[in-house]
Amino acid sequence: MADIQNKIFELARELFPICRSITGDGVRKTLSILNNVYPVKIHNIASGTTVSDWSVPLEWNIKSAYIKDCSGNRIIDLASNNLHVVGYSIPVDKILSLEELLPHIYTDKERPDAIPYVTSYYKERWGFCMSENQKSRLPAGNFHVFIDSTLEKGNLTYGEIFLPGKSDKEILLSTYICHPSMANNEVSGPALTIYLAKYLSGLDRRYSYRILFLPETIGSITYISQNISHLQKHVAAGFVLSCVGDDRAFSYVASPYGNTLADKALKNVLRFEVTDFKSYSFLERGSDERQYCSPLANLPVCGFCRSKYGEYPEYHTSDDNMSIISPSGFLGSYNVMRECITALESNFYYKTLTLCEPQLGKRGLYPTESFKGSAALVRSMTNFIAYADGKNDLIDISNIINNPVSELIPIVQKLLREKIIEEKELESRNVIKIGAFNL
Amino acid sequence: MADIQNKIFELARELFPICRSITGDGVRKTLSILNNVYPVKIHNIASGTTVSDWSVPLEWNIKSAYIKDCSGNRIIDLASNNLHVVGYSIPVDKILSLEELLPHIYTDKERPDAIPYVTSYYKERWGFCMSENQKSRLPAGNFHVFIDSTLEKGNLTYGEIFLPGKSDKEILLSTYICHPSMANNEVSGPALTIYLAKYLSGLDRRYSYRILFLPETIGSITYISQNISHLQKHVAAGFVLSCVGDDRAFSYVASPYGNTLADKALKNVLRFEVTDFKSYSFLERGSDERQYCSPLANLPVCGFCRSKYGEYPEYHTSDDNMSIISPSGFLGSYNVMRECITALESNFYYKTLTLCEPQLGKRGLYPTESFKGSAALVRSMTNFIAYADGKNDLIDISNIINNPVSELIPIVQKLLREKIIEEKELESRNVIKIGAFNL
Amino acid sequence: MADIQNKIFELARELFPICRSITGDGVRKTLSILNNVYPVKIHNIASGTTVSDWSVPLEWNIKSAYIKDCSGNRIIDLASNNLHVVGYSIPVDKILSLEELLPHIYTDKERPDAIPYVTSYYKERWGFCMSENQKSRLPAGNFHVFIDSTLEKGNLTYGEIFLPGKSDKEILLSTYICHPSMANNEVSGPALTIYLAKYLSGLDRRYSYRILFLPETIGSITYISQNISHLQKHVAAGFVLSCVGDDRAFSYVASPYGNTLADKALKNVLRFEVTDFKSYSFLERGSDERQYCSPLANLPVCGFCRSKYGEYPEYHTSDDNMSIISPSGFLGSYNVMRECITALESNFYYKTLTLCEPQLGKRGLYPTESFKGSAALVRSMTNFIAYADGKNDLIDISNIINNPVSELIPIVQKLLREKIIEEKELESRNVIKIGAFNL
Repeated sequence: MADIQNKIFELARELFPICRSITGDGVRKTLSILNNVYPVKIHNIASGTTVSDWSVPLEWNIKSAYIKDCSGNRIIDLASNNLHVVGYSIPVDKILSLEELLPHIYTDKERPDAIPYVTSYYKERWGFCMSENQKSRLPAGNFHVFIDSTLEKGNLTYGEIFLPGKSDKEILLSTYICHPSMANNEVSGPALTIYLAKYLSGLDRRYSYRILFLPETIGSITYISQNISHLQKHVAAGFVLSCVGDDRAFSYVASPYGNTLADKALKNVLRFEVTDFKSYSFLERGSDERQYCSPLANLPVCGFCRSKYGEYPEYHTSDDNMSIISPSGFLGSYNVMRECITALESNFYYKTLTLCEPQLGKRGLYPTESFKGSAALVRSMTNFIAYADGKNDLIDISNIINNPVSELIPIVQKLLREKIIEEKELESRNVIKIGAFNL
Repeated sequence: MADIQNKIFELARELFPICRSITGDGVRKTLSILNNVYPVKIHNIASGTTVSDWSVPLEWNIKSAYIKDCSGNRIIDLASNNLHVVGYSIPVDKILSLEELLPHIYTDKERPDAIPYVTSYYKERWGFCMSENQKSRLPAGNFHVFIDSTLEKGNLTYGEIFLPGKSDKEILLSTYICHPSMANNEVSGPALTIYLAKYLSGLDRRYSYRILFLPETIGSITYISQNISHLQKHVAAGFVLSCVGDDRAFSYVASPYGNTLADKALKNVLRFEVTDFKSYSFLERGSDERQYCSPLANLPVCGFCRSKYGEYPEYHTSDDNMSIISPSGFLGSYNVMRECITALESNFYYKTLTLCEPQLGKRGLYPTESFKGSAALVRSMTNFIAYADGKNDLIDISNIINNPVSELIPIVQKLLREKIIEEKELESRNVIKIGAFNL
Repeated sequence: MADIQNKIFELARELFPICRSITGDGVRKTLSILNNVYPVKIHNIASGTTVSDWSVPLEWNIKSAYIKDCSGNRIIDLASNNLHVVGYSIPVDKILSLEELLPHIYTDKERPDAIPYVTSYYKERWGFCMSENQKSRLPAGNFHVFIDSTLEKGNLTYGEIFLPGKSDKEILLSTYICHPSMANNEVSGPALTIYLAKYLSGLDRRYSYRILFLPETIGSITYISQNISHLQKHVAAGFVLSCVGDDRAFSYVASPYGNTLADKALKNVLRFEVTDFKSYSFLERGSDERQYCSPLANLPVCGFCRSKYGEYPEYHTSDDNMSIISPSGFLGSYNVMRECITALESNFYYKTLTLCEPQLGKRGLYPTESFKGSAALVRSMTNFIAYADGKNDLIDISNIINNPVSELIPIVQKLLREKIIEEKELESRNVIKIGAFNL
């Protein structure tokens, strides 16, 4: 695992140049690259399929696109940056005056050097994106606008990995594969997630894991609408992974009431394993937790990011490129998600077996001399036992006694071995207990 | 409605000079003036009637009262200010020395220029009120004290308006009509409330409305004791209106546990519709919420004021006159109560009808281009849908998603029309949910 | 009661010199002195008896112990301070070099002038304790170490007082009698507790009281393991009394969830009756609440101290002597515990008997003149009535209306006498309600 972060980063670099949208060849090419790391099952859902309130759109593909000035110079070209074309643009091949062109040009005035990311999935349009500075320098005269795209019946394509565990209860990981060349808000998600899949494949799993690579929104709507009964029956906790490659922050996006097992596990890990993190309420949602947590889906899912979508300055522009993500950024995300998985895999209920405190000393678990301070040496162990009342799961106890799950797991192993506690397999509750009590 | 505030203010001015007490002609004159705005049904309850732990007192009326000094000058006179006589004073016609007079003189040392308001309903006394400054200048010598009052069997009189709605569940508005010439702490309440009655009479009402004009304490005790079964069965929420005419503050007086539908509606409106307000616990109660919320009555009632009784310097003195209330003060109160009524009338439960987010775009509810910031445009709508899980009523959702009910109502109408949500008529819960959740 | 504090202090002084450990003659001598104040029933549990996960240890007694230097001077001697010997030291009589001696010397480097308190109950060892300064001055050369102790089959001895009340529900007071000459962290507990027993013996008791004088940890484990069914059925609230003699602080050690009737009573008394106190969570426990509150025992017990064990600088050293405790320190503790007992004895549920507020005036409970401020005079009484809804016990009401129980008790008596409220005997709940409500 020494260089896991570099592998993830290099995969992100490989995925970056692909011209993706919510359908089309870019999605399939992305999935085929992910498949090189760990086998991904590909699903194709035909255009026009009704998925809940929506319909799977036509498949969009694009070969080339440019604007030429009156001298024949390509002033912007899809080949140089695939953000230059509005996503789902219909074909066009026209000579236009500057005045006629301008309504089709999109810029971001707040970030005048960057090309913004714009799409028009559900209304037929064509358009180009460029920097505000470039737009302001456009000369008078005619322009040749050319987009060689197709919008035809085809498929919405997504990838799925299922890793069975001892239990048929599932942990869901979901990420998206639908944006063109953006780094944090696109390739970081699938690059991290496929390596988490590889990690999980090597685990002796308590839970089953379902890992989804979907076009955002329409992909999760499609998946949920076709699998809702299964998901509601089996998903114990789920995480939407997005913007997981930069170094600047850790972010948690709560489920609607912030009280699911997913929230509980992720909050616990962030509280103990990173130096700082930011909590966002569900009002600040923005990725596929929107669908998983919608009222009738009601799945126990929350979101995990480093710098959250919409909260960092490069978001949805050409500045969200490989320079703002890093191997160390990925490593932080990888470790948080691994700790989350560990916490969930270890999250049993515990109950002490002895009336009164057990005698730790006779089992070699307690210093045999009592002196000032000796009690502190075994505080974590005795605190664990004190709250192992059968009503708290491991994460509850971690929160109450203020010890990370990672520190408690070896203690649990010792206590089980010494028959001081018993482990119970119950469905973990969604209640989040924080801190010890002296009301 | 352009000049509603002026109408209310002018009504208050008309009510101000009347010499009111908890019984007597002043109450009846007050009710007959209110009746000119909207018809008020008059009830008379005979003196001596047992009302719970109390008894309806004798009816008190007063024709004139004065103190003359030894030169025959009227140094105080009921005709100049009806606060000069202690309420329920028995008749007197005597010559007294200064020493004999002083025990019958009431002043307010903290406000030495003002005449205090004093009553003695349940023990037979007579007395005069004057400013501390006037008292300190009383000369030695004899005084002629004269009170031409009667304390005889008669009636306790109150007014009631009942406006039936689609539901037999009622919203209660209660205000008092028992103080002599005071402005904020007397005439503001009935003046506002009769105009609210007029407003309500023009509404297509979901709820029925019961509007009471009562002498404080003994009036509400009388009403409650004679109507408790009906009230407990029908009242969904109630408000005691008092001190609603000044410009200085908005105040909320909580029910005993602050958790009734009345608290929920009023707190929500104050949170979103005024710039600032002060919350008082039930420990700071003082008007008829004392009776409505008493343990065996246990009605869902809270109090609404601008500057709360007991909290403003002119309270219970002659300085509580028309100069401290204003049309704009009334307008603020009128608007808060109207918003409260609107919130209650609109407070249904909502449940989304589509699995996953609905496609707003195809219904013209969503911008068809996606660009940086576009999501914010429909945030309120999507947030509403996100919490329309059938467990939240409109006020809950308003509190959670941080949008005023007044902004949500048109959104609800659109969503109902588009069959994105359904409306359910459930009894609104008393739980107050505040803010989004990221525990 | 004028000099109760001096009596407690003098008893502490009498108990101080005794060389106590968890078993042996010191315990018995301590109990016989306590018996002079109020009769204590002595229990003996034989060495080797299995008590839950533990076994009653051999009985330890010691006659003398010293270290002589090569000149024959006793450089330390049990007779001068019984902290000089490690508790449960096995016999020794040897000539050792300084190098051989040092591993058997215990000091406290953080408090270099003090002798630390050290024990080795569950592993056979011998050792001496001295100040760090003395150790650093030990000359080279040989030393004669001598400990004349016995470690033999005998008994664990504890004392018990049972005071029957009208109810078979019990209040438990538990303190320890197992440390040698330490003042706050030893003799303060039994000295205070025996006088509380004497006080309780003179009460007309609602509750029964069970008062235990136990060696810490093994004593409470023994008692609990032999009486668990009875305790779980009968104990309504319990308090572990420890470090109750100094003047510096009041401390509360919460039960695991801080929500038992014991927590509720003690927190209420500390909130109202002392100027300041410190709350510790169960994570900071350290005395026999460890056993009473262990998950399978699960008794409603919390801890009371002045300066909490482990939190004051003299703790577990020879500086914890009679100079750091005082009669006034004891008086503070005595008063808090008496108020706690009073609160529990008086903690019934109350329900008002009149619809609406009762008429206090006709019963002489209300001023007959209404004037500015008069309402405040009867606020406590009317607030009590306002929350006497049958769902709050006396402590709940005290917490809600912000009046001490001691002020409410005479009000309750008046209201019962006047048939304004009724008293109900219900089992008090563990919920702690704080403050009035204006959510």
